[in-house]
Amino acid sequence: MKSIKLPQAFLANGIHSGLKKKRKDLSLFYSLTPCKIAAVFTSNLVKAAPVQLAVETLKKTDHIRAVLINSGNANCMTGKQGLIDAKKIVKRTAGVLGVKESEVLVSSTGVIGKLLNMRPLISGIKIVAAGLSAEGAIDASDAIMTTDKFRKAVVREFVVGDKTVTMTGIAKGAGMINPNMATMLCYILTDCNITHGALQKALRDSNEKSFNAITVDGDMSTNDTLMLLANGEAQNEIIKENTKEYKIFKKNLDSITMRLAELIVKDGEGATKFVEVKIEGAKNDIDAKKAAESIANSLLTKCAIHGEDPNWGRVAAAVGMSGAEFDPEWLEIILDGITFFKNGRFTEPPLSDISHVFKRKNIKILVKLHYGKGKATVYTCDISKKYITINALYTT
Amino acid sequence: MKSIKLPQAFLANGIHSGLKKKRKDLSLFYSLTPCKIAAVFTSNLVKAAPVQLAVETLKKTDHIRAVLINSGNANCMTGKQGLIDAKKIVKRTAGVLGVKESEVLVSSTGVIGKLLNMRPLISGIKIVAAGLSAEGAIDASDAIMTTDKFRKAVVREFVVGDKTVTMTGIAKGAGMINPNMATMLCYILTDCNITHGALQKALRDSNEKSFNAITVDGDMSTNDTLMLLANGEAQNEIIKENTKEYKIFKKNLDSITMRLAELIVKDGEGATKFVEVKIEGAKNDIDAKKAAESIANSLLTKCAIHGEDPNWGRVAAAVGMSGAEFDPEWLEIILDGITFFKNGRFTEPPLSDISHVFKRKNIKILVKLHYGKGKATVYTCDISKKYITINALYTT
Repeated sequence: MKSIKLPQAFLANGIHSGLKKKRKDLSLFYSLTPCKIAAVFTSNLVKAAPVQLAVETLKKTDHIRAVLINSGNANCMTGKQGLIDAKKIVKRTAGVLGVKESEVLVSSTGVIGKLLNMRPLISGIKIVAAGLSAEGAIDASDAIMTTDKFRKAVVREFVVGDKTVTMTGIAKGAGMINPNMATMLCYILTDCNITHGALQKALRDSNEKSFNAITVDGDMSTNDTLMLLANGEAQNEIIKENTKEYKIFKKNLDSITMRLAELIVKDGEGATKFVEVKIEGAKNDIDAKKAAESIANSLLTKCAIHGEDPNWGRVAAAVGMSGAEFDPEWLEIILDGITFFKNGRFTEPPLSDISHVFKRKNIKILVKLHYGKGKATVYTCDISKKYITINALYTT
Repeated sequence: MKSIKLPQAFLANGIHSGLKKKRKDLSLFYSLTPCKIAAVFTSNLVKAAPVQLAVETLKKTDHIRAVLINSGNANCMTGKQGLIDAKKIVKRTAGVLGVKESEVLVSSTGVIGKLLNMRPLISGIKIVAAGLSAEGAIDASDAIMTTDKFRKAVVREFVVGDKTVTMTGIAKGAGMINPNMATMLCYILTDCNITHGALQKALRDSNEKSFNAITVDGDMSTNDTLMLLANGEAQNEIIKENTKEYKIFKKNLDSITMRLAELIVKDGEGATKFVEVKIEGAKNDIDAKKAAESIANSLLTKCAIHGEDPNWGRVAAAVGMSGAEFDPEWLEIILDGITFFKNGRFTEPPLSDISHVFKRKNIKILVKLHYGKGKATVYTCDISKKYITINALYTT
């Protein structure tokens, strides 16, 4: 990726401020005109200071101008001082940009429990702001990364009426990804003109099928943040809910969130496989999601996938312990298109048929419960020795 | 361990029948006189054939004479044929021992979904029975092992009235251990004379604080079995519930189940640390257990422990995502006796104080929620690269 196109009137930048030793650690997204905003935050009871502050700010305002993000420190479990620091950052950013404090949001990602090193951060704000440009999205996307192995950005352009709309999504996230979107930061910027209600509904629905359907290790972060900013500069006729134009907007948003979610899973710490877990025929959708998540989070299943071993028995055991209602006799287990269990018994597929199962980069696990009409899809990755190495050494 | 003492009138043996390539794979426990029995089985909805059969048998009878256990194959997800096979094994064992079919229970452990190789198993029954002896417990305990690295047996002797009572517990279990006692087999034999009601109550209560409080990887097996057999041959005055003698019995039973649970965790696949997770001050005991299990099953926390990195932030995040109610401001996190978080902030203990934290073999995580009176303790281990290696290659 040589460049990431930003929508009209958006600028971005990313720099090394000094929070990390060498890598870029401070990003800024800025709109020349006010943006409507929709946002979703972590459901972890332990919320980082910037998340607490953003929730408060968004109670009072429905538009913003800028988002400042630091990596290297999560500013979480930092008590009153953490909140004071977050507010200082907002104040400084607003001052430098010449906007209101209520128009600036901050996000943080990195180590929990340490106070922010404020000196380089505060100095960095002026530098990152001074370098804002329409070409700055690459740097901005690099500066939000922690253990990410690659940059995650998706751009979509589509037509609404006679106007061309641009939508750019930039995300970070590797380990600790779990339904309810853990340690993930994602900023989606668009110049689309859309009502605040439609913007919020689109983000909520899109999040459910994408970021809330991915899991790497079952852990859930304290800092997850998903924001959708729309400044209306494409000057299309305003989009309202339940219109043809809304569907076009939503379809493009979905394609960004789904692709970013997939990239996050593919970058799961140490991951070598991308796994789609699909449940059909559950009692209801809730049971289906329970079963899908139980398989996706089963360490034994993830190990089997890593070892390219079609151990369907572990899949069965994971469904059995999920809490979903079903009758084991009716269970049907299909791995990469090959049925392994049906009508109460192992189907003993010939070796020639199963030689490809779990061997590819992209794996599909389909379990039919034949018990009702509930269904769900969850995305995950395998687990490798590298995951342990990365996470055993994270802060030391 | 050179020998494992069996209680009076109990015999045991373990042999290599041919289900596994080389290692012992068939065990038999036998009592010369009828035994009262209490048992607990897996709560996984997918139950192995021998578990289904044992549940049925115990509905009709309250005493047995023998338990036959095979390793190498779980006889699970094997449909009608699996049940037919389990019944054949019972019939053959009863025939060889000259007891009723209702007096024989079977257990299986190993790979899921493959039909039992019946020929060596059926031939083996005669051989294992022919070699029964009072010295056979070592062989029996070896033959039930799968990925276990060491034998797990505990013997207690205690006095009831003027009689000496012996209680011998033998278990297997390594990976896939989870609250609700996954892939664990445990047989506790005693010559104590005790009422059936007292036996059942003692086992149920003892299980709750021991096997149901351990977790290695959060997975839950389809074959878990815990049995307590009492043949009364010590000829003590019969023990009833809520007596002084019951307390003595229960205390010794607890010391066996706790010790075996500890051994199972210590043998967790690839484990290098034994971790006690204690929650105090939760809203209630249910919330306390939720929080304790969330920490114990958090992969990021297990990785931090493996890396000897006192990353208390991951502990905080795990409590936050547990579903337990609390106020993060009041959270108190104590690792190996050192307070890391209190009164809403990181306590910044000096390096000299924390130099031992997570460095020892036995680790203690204590979280005080200061929210109510609920408490819980859960035991677990760290996760290492070896876990991945063992489980990526299990069936291949």
